[in-house]
Amino acid sequence: MILIKNAAYLVRDAERVERNVDLLVEGNKISRIGAIGVEDCPPDTMVLDGSQRAVIPGLINAHTHLYQSMLKGRRDDLPLVEWCEEVTFPFVRKVLRAAWDKGETEIGQLWSQLGAIEMIHSGITSFIDMDMNLDGVIRAWSELGIRGTAAMTLVDQWVPEDLMLPLEKTREQTLKLIEEWHLTDPLVTVFLAPSAPFTCSESLLTWIREQSEAHDLGIQTHVSETVWEVEQSVELTGLTPLRYLEQMGLLSRPLTAVHCVHLTEEEIELAAQRGVVTVYNAKSNMKLGSGIAPIISLCRAGASIAMGTDGAASNDLLDPFEEMRCGLLLQKVAHTDPTVLGARDAFRFATEGGARASRIDAGVLDEGKLADIVLLDLSAPHILRFTDEIVAALVYCAKSSDVETVIINGRIVMRDQVIQSVDETAILTEIKRVGARYAT
Amino acid sequence: MILIKNAAYLVRDAERVERNVDLLVEGNKISRIGAIGVEDCPPDTMVLDGSQRAVIPGLINAHTHLYQSMLKGRRDDLPLVEWCEEVTFPFVRKVLRAAWDKGETEIGQLWSQLGAIEMIHSGITSFIDMDMNLDGVIRAWSELGIRGTAAMTLVDQWVPEDLMLPLEKTREQTLKLIEEWHLTDPLVTVFLAPSAPFTCSESLLTWIREQSEAHDLGIQTHVSETVWEVEQSVELTGLTPLRYLEQMGLLSRPLTAVHCVHLTEEEIELAAQRGVVTVYNAKSNMKLGSGIAPIISLCRAGASIAMGTDGAASNDLLDPFEEMRCGLLLQKVAHTDPTVLGARDAFRFATEGGARASRIDAGVLDEGKLADIVLLDLSAPHILRFTDEIVAALVYCAKSSDVETVIINGRIVMRDQVIQSVDETAILTEIKRVGARYAT
Repeated sequence: MILIKNAAYLVRDAERVERNVDLLVEGNKISRIGAIGVEDCPPDTMVLDGSQRAVIPGLINAHTHLYQSMLKGRRDDLPLVEWCEEVTFPFVRKVLRAAWDKGETEIGQLWSQLGAIEMIHSGITSFIDMDMNLDGVIRAWSELGIRGTAAMTLVDQWVPEDLMLPLEKTREQTLKLIEEWHLTDPLVTVFLAPSAPFTCSESLLTWIREQSEAHDLGIQTHVSETVWEVEQSVELTGLTPLRYLEQMGLLSRPLTAVHCVHLTEEEIELAAQRGVVTVYNAKSNMKLGSGIAPIISLCRAGASIAMGTDGAASNDLLDPFEEMRCGLLLQKVAHTDPTVLGARDAFRFATEGGARASRIDAGVLDEGKLADIVLLDLSAPHILRFTDEIVAALVYCAKSSDVETVIINGRIVMRDQVIQSVDETAILTEIKRVGARYAT
Repeated sequence: MILIKNAAYLVRDAERVERNVDLLVEGNKISRIGAIGVEDCPPDTMVLDGSQRAVIPGLINAHTHLYQSMLKGRRDDLPLVEWCEEVTFPFVRKVLRAAWDKGETEIGQLWSQLGAIEMIHSGITSFIDMDMNLDGVIRAWSELGIRGTAAMTLVDQWVPEDLMLPLEKTREQTLKLIEEWHLTDPLVTVFLAPSAPFTCSESLLTWIREQSEAHDLGIQTHVSETVWEVEQSVELTGLTPLRYLEQMGLLSRPLTAVHCVHLTEEEIELAAQRGVVTVYNAKSNMKLGSGIAPIISLCRAGASIAMGTDGAASNDLLDPFEEMRCGLLLQKVAHTDPTVLGARDAFRFATEGGARASRIDAGVLDEGKLADIVLLDLSAPHILRFTDEIVAALVYCAKSSDVETVIINGRIVMRDQVIQSVDETAILTEIKRVGARYAT
């Protein structure tokens, strides 16, 4: 058991904050919140001091590409399509050649560790990773103790030929992955991830819908990130991307639509009606000049919003605090109206919205919920404040460097900023050694 | 002397980066850059290890209001005018009543320490603070060892009566301040700061121009932050704010124009022609929904840009890394074009642009320049990279928590993240104690 004693602020969700309260974790769940004495717990209970701290639901990154953790600090002067060709494809090509031709897959585990380590330090307890199907990517999370959704990238058109397996092989590998990982590890879920509607044939999209139904899998896909992509969709299918996904039956499945920058008004209503969760990736959309997602219209229509960092090549951080701030500030300035969205909205996107996107029973601190919990130290000068509006303070002032302790699935994965589950220094050394072969 | 040995990256400016090089500080200046042996230096030379580190010019915050460091995490749902009335004015009122009626001014020193401590931790070595004239505000910088420009706020209209001294008293206090502080301390410069053109009478603006000439003082003022403010200016003076400042003769003086969100095309040309330095405060403009400054047009016209965080009540951080990122990303998305501005531009705004705004001989690492230098640790997972594009990595990936050592005016003010000049913990305790009387 883990007992968090005397939390200065227990942020149960964006609206419910309690002061000076205790929280008990039993197994992988939150079992009690209230006044709980150390003497009422078994002698081997781990007691964490919550005073001077905010205790919050673990933050959820609803869209990233962990392989891009190897591509930080690259070109920042290219639009999406050229950026794919010059920044991400060359790396992907090297990785896939090594994996398919020589069976070398070590790099997958390393980028997965690197991204997951950055996320744990930033207070992320769960994420959705749209990635390559490479041995070790998922195993890394299990070893680190972070909760992850493997959204397996599926494409059979647009992407250069040498980056795609034959369709039959892709299907075979995907089924193997589902069998091997989906819910067999308590930390892992598998999603199906058509990279974007225009990168998949009708037959692949149909197969995805069928497998999603057969195995009860969520689907994640990029939707309307750029104007170009919407034009491609209309040209190829006669429909805008979300409408096309509806026609292909994918909106009848649990779908997370990533970006949604250029949705039509009709698609915004459609997303809300069909329970599509939109993943807002503000910094990535800004860096690539893709545009500003219609988050206010989506909220008004009643759609669910989650928050994603996107990959580290277009962000370049996996930092939910900066993402919450930036995404919130962007909407305020886009509408030249500071009242359109508030700190609580951003916090909800990064917690409850992320849980809905990931289909996990987390995102709030309530009895019976998964014990994905973050303790933030409130003593740094940058967060010294004379107000109890703690959610606003967390969204506007907190930094990843304030994240002190991270509990995931009832296990202390980081304590006092030191990762407990693995030797971080050794991993980083190995990443530098092996990564240089692929990323330079 | 201070010898930085073997800097992994010596970022002399946005365009010039050297690898594995040494830098020597003598007195308050950089005296040599190159291969410098420890044995060639006097025995009492302090040697700092630059390997695994980026050594960069100290970052410059060209506009802030340190008093707002007491107002973090407040309301985020108000436009500028209401925000002044509900967030800043009540605090200012308490402070000024205590100072004017009872002679209690301790709070000024405390907010100044708090803001300066946050800035040192974030790699800021110099700043312009538009603040109240309260004993202790400037003294705090001198004690901490940070370089500051006291831009003394001057108003005689619009602001509530009880927040203004009689004009004669204001002039008298300002002259006293100039005599006491302007260049008498090597770290301190005084600027004159009409809060905004519409908050000053013609006679006050004329007096400001005269004093600026007589004492060779820079001027800083808020310009065209909101549409409302431009409308006020046109209604009261018949001219838009920058044109009005030109008519009042202020553009013939070294002027930093803060915000400039709503400049006309004509004013953009005027700013460039007259050498006005525009201070870009992206996050504050976003939070208050004020709009997006025409930074691209200003750059194309040849105007100088500096970077500012604005006060902590509208940001809420004094963090130049987030400010560079956010300001850069905002321009890319505003133009839906990732090529309009790059990491090097943002870095230049925060270094050379800031030095020009502050009228100090810093902002680049060259022999003979002021020794305002920051060492950043490059070992954290969030900045692990396989590229030598170090300026891009610093702008997109670096965090204040990577700032390890800060040298200002040739003195080590922070080392290994510990402030050397004062007892930070004792100061923070005192701030909490006294601040509660004013800020709650």
